[in-house]
Amino acid sequence: MASSPIWASRPKTRGLVLDLIRAARSISRVELAAATGLTGATISAVVRELMGDGLVVEAGRGGPTGGKPRTMVQLNPLARYSVGVQLERNTCVIVVVDLAGRQVARTSFQGVASMPPERALPLVASQVDALLATAAVDRERVLGVGLVSYGPQDRRAGVLLTPQPTDAWLDYPVARLLAETLGLPVLLDNDAAAAAIGEYWMGAVDPRSTYGCIYMATGIGGGVVVAGEVYRGSSSNSVEIGHISMDINGDECSCGNVGCLENYAGPSAIVRQAMATPGLAQRLALDSTAADLLTEFARIAAAANAGDTGARGLVEQSARHLGGAAVTMACLFDVDTIVLAGPSFAVAGSIYQTLIQQEVDRRLFARRAHPVRIVPSVNGSDAAAIGGAILVLQSELTLRHPRTDDGARPVPAGTAEIH
Amino acid sequence: MASSPIWASRPKTRGLVLDLIRAARSISRVELAAATGLTGATISAVVRELMGDGLVVEAGRGGPTGGKPRTMVQLNPLARYSVGVQLERNTCVIVVVDLAGRQVARTSFQGVASMPPERALPLVASQVDALLATAAVDRERVLGVGLVSYGPQDRRAGVLLTPQPTDAWLDYPVARLLAETLGLPVLLDNDAAAAAIGEYWMGAVDPRSTYGCIYMATGIGGGVVVAGEVYRGSSSNSVEIGHISMDINGDECSCGNVGCLENYAGPSAIVRQAMATPGLAQRLALDSTAADLLTEFARIAAAANAGDTGARGLVEQSARHLGGAAVTMACLFDVDTIVLAGPSFAVAGSIYQTLIQQEVDRRLFARRAHPVRIVPSVNGSDAAAIGGAILVLQSELTLRHPRTDDGARPVPAGTAEIH
Repeated sequence: MASSPIWASRPKTRGLVLDLIRAARSISRVELAAATGLTGATISAVVRELMGDGLVVEAGRGGPTGGKPRTMVQLNPLARYSVGVQLERNTCVIVVVDLAGRQVARTSFQGVASMPPERALPLVASQVDALLATAAVDRERVLGVGLVSYGPQDRRAGVLLTPQPTDAWLDYPVARLLAETLGLPVLLDNDAAAAAIGEYWMGAVDPRSTYGCIYMATGIGGGVVVAGEVYRGSSSNSVEIGHISMDINGDECSCGNVGCLENYAGPSAIVRQAMATPGLAQRLALDSTAADLLTEFARIAAAANAGDTGARGLVEQSARHLGGAAVTMACLFDVDTIVLAGPSFAVAGSIYQTLIQQEVDRRLFARRAHPVRIVPSVNGSDAAAIGGAILVLQSELTLRHPRTDDGARPVPAGTAEIH
Repeated sequence: MASSPIWASRPKTRGLVLDLIRAARSISRVELAAATGLTGATISAVVRELMGDGLVVEAGRGGPTGGKPRTMVQLNPLARYSVGVQLERNTCVIVVVDLAGRQVARTSFQGVASMPPERALPLVASQVDALLATAAVDRERVLGVGLVSYGPQDRRAGVLLTPQPTDAWLDYPVARLLAETLGLPVLLDNDAAAAAIGEYWMGAVDPRSTYGCIYMATGIGGGVVVAGEVYRGSSSNSVEIGHISMDINGDECSCGNVGCLENYAGPSAIVRQAMATPGLAQRLALDSTAADLLTEFARIAAAANAGDTGARGLVEQSARHLGGAAVTMACLFDVDTIVLAGPSFAVAGSIYQTLIQQEVDRRLFARRAHPVRIVPSVNGSDAAAIGGAILVLQSELTLRHPRTDDGARPVPAGTAEIH
């Protein structure tokens, strides 16, 4: 029987080998052949091509294992870069990462998202330009920009389907405008999905793992990764965990649902409750008119860490609610790990981790099957921006398969268009 | 560059072509080549092999489309059969289906699951034998048995990780014992996952669809299918929607969680509430000592259909709660369709369908992105048993890939062992 045409299988094989080299940090051709089941000749050809493109370099010899010492190959981390931009209500974070996903430059600034997009995006673009210049990154080596923000989104069209950060952003062609202004490809994605994939790329989870991420900034989002790829669903608007109902008798949320997690566990709920707690607002010098909600929330989290009973009670309540949502996530997605990422876990992360773990251990239906570990993100507060940059690396380098090896499966719905 | 070795790509290509022939009912080699992107020579070779195995037959000629008329190929539905066994607390349903997934024989009986498994399974085996004999199905053509029941499960070991139907079933090697008694391969799976895959196989959903299934018998389970394959997660214990919390202030469930959906919307909750409603129990002649909960529930559902206000109120309440769970399912999995399957939707299905659709339309976060349709299962009450049989067909015929085309991706965790 004839095999598949060579052109069909090549991009995937190339991506697979590159991903293995990246994950292993340093690996021999013999080990690559063993890990992939491909022949030595195929591996040699693919590695030669990757070296020709400057993505991979030879890097000394591994220890002899009975035979002759093997030449190791590794990524050339400086061969390519990508940019991650996270746009949130208060803050915009921009990072530049190298091919290994390591951050080489970072900046953040406030206020941009309260502007209309036609003013905000050129400002973001100028900050990207400035950051690349400061880091002395050759623009020719920048694969593109991962712009991550609120869901729901139409990733293909590159627009937000939500009136966030403000009404002016709804349906605005954010990806196209940023791409045109910067002269770089721009990919739009969900901030929490980006945070989730960053864990995989940075080697924090087993490549075969099915794991979840709860991302908390001003809002609460989620992502699930299955064997190294973001779970997308039918339109890439999956794992919107901030808007699942925790309470059938709860208040209606602006999203239309009732009793949404975000209104029980999120920073705005906790700040609101702190303001309403006699003595607490004064004790912590909370400012109900502060523009940056996260600063106020961080004060409460810091007071909780320091043992303030009132503050601790509120943070613990938030953590228990997140624990309930983690149980739902695990019950539905059967994850083995849940990563806590984003700035709102930065201060009181250990309280959250401990209490969410307790809820999952006690309440999860399938806990007889396997444990679910709650862990902090390796990328911390900047997980979404770093993840945005990593999604570009992944999309450009390892998932570029115009056709699968069968040449047959349709492109999954929700696949992003690069703008 | 060398392409992948032929042996590595063959099983998947074969499965893919077979799946396309099955889905299309009747298709030409030219259309198969167009649909797969494979060459005409490859398609001819695969079809020849499938015809040699008796799985596919030629079936007349398609209409001329400018050129010469094309010879059509189609499944030979009588080439293979499989058996589905659903074991529930009250009822055991057994079906035999042909290669097209069509039911050729069915039986059901009560009481077996209250016995210990070492007595129950030989009885089930004798019923399978009798059914195959009655239907005059050649045992040589039976691929195996899909045994579907409660989660959580260890599919690989073929055991239930739950003390259901009774304590004696926990950790008992059900798949191995049934396989040994019957002399046929047995695959254990979740009943709701089985019900979900049945929709795909019967052509009720688009092959690219990401869809969910809510399965309601005495309990409530769920399944999600992504591009024709059951979403498995890390241990195949996914989508346990009956045990997600609807109410943070709810009562503790036997599973350890609080406010579980099953205790608000499931048949036992509705029957319990009906018993406690003055006048209703007498009016509907409900029997609190009845062995078969589903019969009592069906009386309430029938009264709701007939306009009994008290009964209708209870069914509507159940439907609203299921609507809330459907919102959570859609919010997390981003499904485009949710199928309602199982015996407890049989009587008042249209009330459920209407109200669940209303809740989803009103409350779903990402409803701007796309609608989510609520539809009845094409397999109705027997969806789980039929799905069990179909999982065997799928496992044996289309998903048999000892290595992927890359020869590289590890076997996903949670893959079932055939016993």
